[in-house]
This record gives sequence, C-alpha cells and structure tokens, in this order.
Amino acid sequence: MSGRTVTAQDVAALSAIVGAPNCLYKEAISEDYGHDELGGVCSMPEIVLRVGTTGEVSEILRYASQREIPLVVRGSGTGLVGAAVAVRRGILLDMTRMNRILELDEDNLTVTVQPGVLLMELAEFVQAHGLFYPPDPGEKSATIGGNISTNAGGMRAVKYGVTRDFVRGLTVVLPSGEVLELGGKVVKNSSGYSLKDLVIGSEGTLCVITQAVLKLLVLPTVVVSLLVPFSSADEALDAVPAIVRSKANPTAIEYMSRDVILMAEKYLGKKFPDTHAPAYLLLTFDGNSLEQVEQSYAATAELCLAHGAQDVLIVDTDERKKCVWDARGAFLEAIKAGAVEMDECDVVVPRSCIADYIKFTHRLAEKLNLRIPSFGHAGDGNLHIYLCRDAMSRQEFAARCKDAFAALYARAAQEGGKISGEHGIGYAKKGYLQKQIPPAELALMRGIKAVFDPQNLLNPDKVCE
Amino acid sequence: MSGRTVTAQDVAALSAIVGAPNCLYKEAISEDYGHDELGGVCSMPEIVLRVGTTGEVSEILRYASQREIPLVVRGSGTGLVGAAVAVRRGILLDMTRMNRILELDEDNLTVTVQPGVLLMELAEFVQAHGLFYPPDPGEKSATIGGNISTNAGGMRAVKYGVTRDFVRGLTVVLPSGEVLELGGKVVKNSSGYSLKDLVIGSEGTLCVITQAVLKLLVLPTVVVSLLVPFSSADEALDAVPAIVRSKANPTAIEYMSRDVILMAEKYLGKKFPDTHAPAYLLLTFDGNSLEQVEQSYAATAELCLAHGAQDVLIVDTDERKKCVWDARGAFLEAIKAGAVEMDECDVVVPRSCIADYIKFTHRLAEKLNLRIPSFGHAGDGNLHIYLCRDAMSRQEFAARCKDAFAALYARAAQEGGKISGEHGIGYAKKGYLQKQIPPAELALMRGIKAVFDPQNLLNPDKVCE
Repeated sequence: MSGRTVTAQDVAALSAIVGAPNCLYKEAISEDYGHDELGGVCSMPEIVLRVGTTGEVSEILRYASQREIPLVVRGSGTGLVGAAVAVRRGILLDMTRMNRILELDEDNLTVTVQPGVLLMELAEFVQAHGLFYPPDPGEKSATIGGNISTNAGGMRAVKYGVTRDFVRGLTVVLPSGEVLELGGKVVKNSSGYSLKDLVIGSEGTLCVITQAVLKLLVLPTVVVSLLVPFSSADEALDAVPAIVRSKANPTAIEYMSRDVILMAEKYLGKKFPDTHAPAYLLLTFDGNSLEQVEQSYAATAELCLAHGAQDVLIVDTDERKKCVWDARGAFLEAIKAGAVEMDECDVVVPRSCIADYIKFTHRLAEKLNLRIPSFGHAGDGNLHIYLCRDAMSRQEFAARCKDAFAALYARAAQEGGKISGEHGIGYAKKGYLQKQIPPAELALMRGIKAVFDPQNLLNPDKVCE
Repeated sequence: MSGRTVTAQDVAALSAIVGAPNCLYKEAISEDYGHDELGGVCSMPEIVLRVGTTGEVSEILRYASQREIPLVVRGSGTGLVGAAVAVRRGILLDMTRMNRILELDEDNLTVTVQPGVLLMELAEFVQAHGLFYPPDPGEKSATIGGNISTNAGGMRAVKYGVTRDFVRGLTVVLPSGEVLELGGKVVKNSSGYSLKDLVIGSEGTLCVITQAVLKLLVLPTVVVSLLVPFSSADEALDAVPAIVRSKANPTAIEYMSRDVILMAEKYLGKKFPDTHAPAYLLLTFDGNSLEQVEQSYAATAELCLAHGAQDVLIVDTDERKKCVWDARGAFLEAIKAGAVEMDECDVVVPRSCIADYIKFTHRLAEKLNLRIPSFGHAGDGNLHIYLCRDAMSRQEFAARCKDAFAALYARAAQEGGKISGEHGIGYAKKGYLQKQIPPAELALMRGIKAVFDPQNLLNPDKVCE
C-alpha cells in the first residue's frame, strides 16, 4: 500500500509551490476539511494546499508522485459519500480558489471555467447572457469540478440529461504532473478512446480536473411549474410513467411527500403553498412559446387529474417558484436537521419502476422500524432515501442501516438499477458497488485505475479499490 | 505479436458454434469482406462467422483467446477508415444476422436492439410509434453497432448531440468470453467508471457489442428545412456562426457547394431544386408548434439574407424534402463515382472555425493541384473532405494525399480540432492520431486496450496501436 507521512521538508517544498498563505498544515487545518456534507466518513489530511493554477497542480502532483504521498481533490465539500475525504491522510488539494469563469464563447455556445466555480455562479452568469447550463443538482453551492467528478444529475435530467452531456472538454493533470487536454470545443469527436468520458464520474481517482469547457443551450423563455397534490404516494407515483409516456416532455418530475415538505417548512421558517395532501408531484415545463408550454402542461394536468390528483396548482410567479424550489432545495438539510444521525442512498432504477420502489421503501421502514423519508427525481428513477436515527442507540442504528442498505440495493439490482444515480460511490458506497458488479467489471475498473495512477496515490481507497 | 493461422480444427470448432451455413471459409468468403466502403484498406479474413446470439459471440471469443486467433467485428461494412477490415486476418465476426429490435419500452422511452439493426430500420420503427432516434449519419444502411463503435454523429448533432448521447446501456462480450451489462435503462448513473462510454467509439478494439439500450425522444411534429443559396462559399460559411449565435436552435446546418450538388444530380439522375448558386446552406428546424418553428426559421431566413443570401427556399413538402435530403445522402457516393480513386478525412474543428477551415481547403487544393471537394456538418464543425485522383498516377496521388493530410490535420490541430468527428480512426487514420495526441494520452489509451484485451486479439493494429 502506498502513502507516507508528510514531513517538514515536504511542507516547505509544497508551501513554496502554492505560497505560504495557501498552505495549511496540522493545527491550521479547519475541522471542515476532515469530512463532507454528510459527515459519515471522517479523516483529517496532513496538509491542505489551496491551489491557484494548473501549473501548481502539476508541480504538486509530480512532487507527490516522487515521494509517494497520497493526494485527494476537494471542491466545496458538499459530497455525501466521502469521496473528498483524505482517508489515507496526506495532501488535500482545495480547488476553491480556482473559481474563475474564463471565457464565454457565443459562437460555439460554450463556457470555459475553472473547477472551483460554483454551480449557482455559473447558472447566473450564463443566464445573464441568455444562455442555459441545464444540469441542476439540488446543491447549488457545489463546484463544477465536483459536479463533473460525480457526473451530477439534478432536476432537469428528465429533459436535458446529466453533467456528462454538457462537458465538451477537460484539462486534467495526471499523477505524473503531465497536463492533458481531453476533448475541447468540438461538438463531435471520434478520435480514439474517450478519456474525457472516463474522467467524468471518476471522483478524483484518475487525475485532477483543472479546467472544463461546458456546452450551453439557449435559455428557454417560458418556464412554468405545476404542483400537484395527490391523496396517496401510490397515486402520485403511478402517474409518473403515464406522464413520461404521454410525450409532454417535462423538464423535471419531482416527487415529494408531506412529511418531507413539513420538515423543509420548519427548517426554512417559510410556508409551502400547499401542505394538505400526503403526496405531491412537482413538474416543470419549459420552451420558447407560451402557447406550446401551456399545451404541454394543460395536457399533463388533465392526465394527473385522471390519475386521481386532488388539484393542480400552477406555479408561474417568481415568488411562488422561489418558495417551491427553495423548499425542494432544502430537503436534504431539513431531513438532516431533524435526525439525530442520518445515512443516505441515491439508488437509481428504470423510471417505470419508481412507484414500486418507493412503496418498497415504505414497507422496509415498517419492517425494520426505521424512519426512511425519501424524495427524488421521480422522472428519472433517481431517489434520495434517508435512513434516520431517532431514539435508538448508535449500534442499533448501524445494524438497521446495514439491513436497510442491503435490502435497498438488492431490490434496485433486481430492477436493473444502480447503486448511485448522481452522488457517486466515494468511500461510503464502495462495498455496495463492489458487491453489485461482476468481478470482471470490477477488474476492468481496477485495471484502468492502475493505468492512470500506477502508484495508487490519487484519492486512494475509493470507488473500485 | 499475437495472431496465428486458422487451422482445419479451428474451422470445425467454430463452425460447430455458429452452424455450418454461417461459417464461411477461404473460397466461400465474398471479396466484400476484405474491405469497407472506402476500400483503401484491404485484407481478407481467414474465416467469417455470421453470429446469431450473445452466447455464440461469447463462445467464439473464448475459443479465439485460448488459441490466440485475432478477431475483427463487422456490421454493414460502411466504414471509411478500415476499422472493420481484418488486417491481421483471422476471424471476422459478421454481426448482420443479429438484427432484431428486441423491445420498445414506452414507459422508459428506450428501445433495445441487436447490433445488426440498420439505422434506417430503427428510425422507421420508432417513428411509427411517435418516437424519435435523433442520430442521423448520412449512411442509413450502417448498423447501430457500427454507429456506436464509431460514436457516429450525423446531421442532427447541432441540436441533439451524437450517438453517445443516446446510448443508455450496452451488452458486451470481453475477449475472455465474459458477458457484461454496462449501464442499462437508467437515466442517471454514477456507479464507478463509465465503461459504457469507454466502449462507445472504441471501434471494436475493447470488446464486442451484442445488444444496446437506446434513448428515444418524442417525435417532433413539425419539421421544416430551408435551402439557402449564396453567391460564394465565404458568404455561406460566414453566416454559420451568426446562426448559432442567434439562438434559433436549428436541428441541422449543412454546407454544400454547387459542384458537389451537380455530382449528386448526375449520380442519382434527379434534379435538385436549385443549382444556380455556387454555395448553399441547408438548415432544418423542428418542434411541436408550427408557430414556433416558423418563428425560428423566419428569423434565420432574415439573418441569412442579411449575410448576403440570394434567396431562401422553404423545403416543406414531403417531395421537396426527399429530393434535397436524398441528394445530401448521396454526396459521398457521388464524389466516389466521379473520381478514379479517392481518400477522405472528417476533421472536426470548433464550429466558429468552419468558414476559415473550408477556405483553407480551397487554397490547399490550388496549392497541391489536387481536386478537394468537401461538404459537411457546418453547424458542428465537422467536414467531410475528399481527395480525388483524376488524371494523375497512383504514386503522384499518394504523394499529394500525404501532403494534403499533413496540412489538413495540422491546421485542424491549430484550431483545437480533432482527427475525426464521426468516422473514427480505424487503420487508415491511426498514424495521424498518434502524431496529434501527446505521448502520455496515447500511453493511457494503450494501457486501457491492454486492460480489456491483454492478448491484443480484438481488432488488432487499429486506433491507438
């Protein structure tokens, strides 16, 4: 196994690369660097380097390789599976200083960014130019580098796809310090194996991303959401395949239950437009013609009513939109705030299976006597499921979680689902991934890891290791 | 180096797997199996196996690995870079019998197909169900397996993206005979390295694709094309970035010159609606509202007129559409028919560079005294450029081609372009790829190849080797 302790000599050498103010060592390292958003995986790095340029990253990687020091990359630390935690200690590369939007190219409809740009900054910037970066994960303070590293999905995947679909080019640094440009501004590319696509979703285990060229679309001029209350979760979820089949082409189909909405109301101290029903679908439609968007949502509204919806609330004013989407964005935080301890899973199943899958989580909660709230991207089969410790011992909670995860992943596998839709594997889920995929597939992943990182220094102990 | 001659014992064993009628040996092998559509790379396989199932493919690969026999996969043979030619002889797997559409899943908006299904069959099948498979390469008789293996692009990439964007899952057979399911019907997936995306575009060098789950969209109800004559190629091409910037969101932006249109007229024996201008743009717009499509194309028509267009012809009847798109689809064949010998390149550059790039090919043609007709996907920077031998010796032609390719790829590289937009690298372009990409990138590709195919038996001597 690789990895050794950072010495005073290393500190001096690394500090010389990034400058003393950007080199944090031992006591100077904030406790925040020891965990991510979920906090289930904890380990403090020995040294944190707040890098500013691709050149610095290259120098640091070359140094770390020569001295066999493990190295982990970190953006905003909003991950949920421990991917950005330095479980073997060593160096933590903090990318948040590399946060510049470098170029908006309106001829090619691309934006070139450093990896530390936040999703919300990017969204706002391109919108001001009448353009649109569709990937829309709930966590807007995540960095683009983090989004690329997990192939983040978000709400609008139903219509627009995931982060992968919007990455045209990457600048990456290999463990040797070598800098490569993968892809570029080109729209098509069939020039050898797509290393770019291999790096997307590789969670910092293959190389360090220091720049990205992202594809933009034209900003739709009309966006309308529908909030649709149903008398039961079953009714709400049964409507989803019918909506997909109806060809109304919604941008987002989110499922939410009253209990989770009430948690968000409490957490935010803000009222949600409607909380009388046990289950809701939140749908969005976008386009450039009011008439066409109206046609789509009117047809979908009728379909929902035919599937037992109690009502259809049109969310078209800015105030209402903000209120509904703020609540949706706060679900994770709200559930976390209401639980003594929490673990999560973000399985993905074919979207036709989502209704049955959520019903299965309800039965599982009852069977294991464990609170399991969930919400999610019903339109693309990706659920966020939370296992909450309330009044039980840590040990008891750990035991029930173990049973719950085993059941949740086994069920997903039966339906052709996968361990993670968008949060990644990191450290927390690697046991489940390695159990689910065949040994030959795991061997390919490990072989690829060894090709990129023969010393096993980049984010060791993650994903396929 | 691997590879050995197929023996009588091998023939017996392989014939037993596929059945005698599907096993062609020596004299029984048609000359067609010795080359692809372009015909520049020629080599006869020793044995052709017309496989029928994933199980057969698995048995054959296991046998070939055990005995170190090289193996090449082939669909319709419509490639242009020799990727499907058995340059080290051995086994050729003909996939065209595996041509069934297995399932249309309207709840998940996916279609599951065998690799030998033809693009035109798939397009027609899903269209009959009100659905849409957007990738639209000119060669409609290509197989889906071939399209996936080259990450084919086509006309509609401007709006909809390339084949990669529509592949959700692949069933593949590794050289060991092991069968893996990569991806599936899920819309999102962040569960380890995306081996599926590595296989897409790998030209049969990593594994054999035996099944694919493809993403479908809802079929747009309104499709209108504009044929726009310009007084010069420069004027036509200068309008392209302006159209992209204008946010009218066309489905396709094709560039064509009068000389190529006249070749197609002659080849097809059919009249094109207009041939008086030296250069044309062919634009398509689609959507579900006539009003919105009209708005988009009207704005673009005005923009073209402002950029010097002589006229704007609306192509909206089925007859006119067929006439124009039949001609567009016949360009390659028409150029080929008119040349004694021909070579081609399909460089891709950022779309903002396309006008300058085509002008560069015109200057190059003059400088080298070589006929270089071209046409292409102007909206996504992907050009198909043909080097034609007319009245010159083979030797002279080869020498001029060498100079021309060197100049074409060097210029593309300067502009951030790539060797191939959609035809792939295969055998014919591997020297150019290996010259263009840095040694570290090539080493990664070779490392990956060795992980999948340690004996180097799958499509040897191609892409990165």
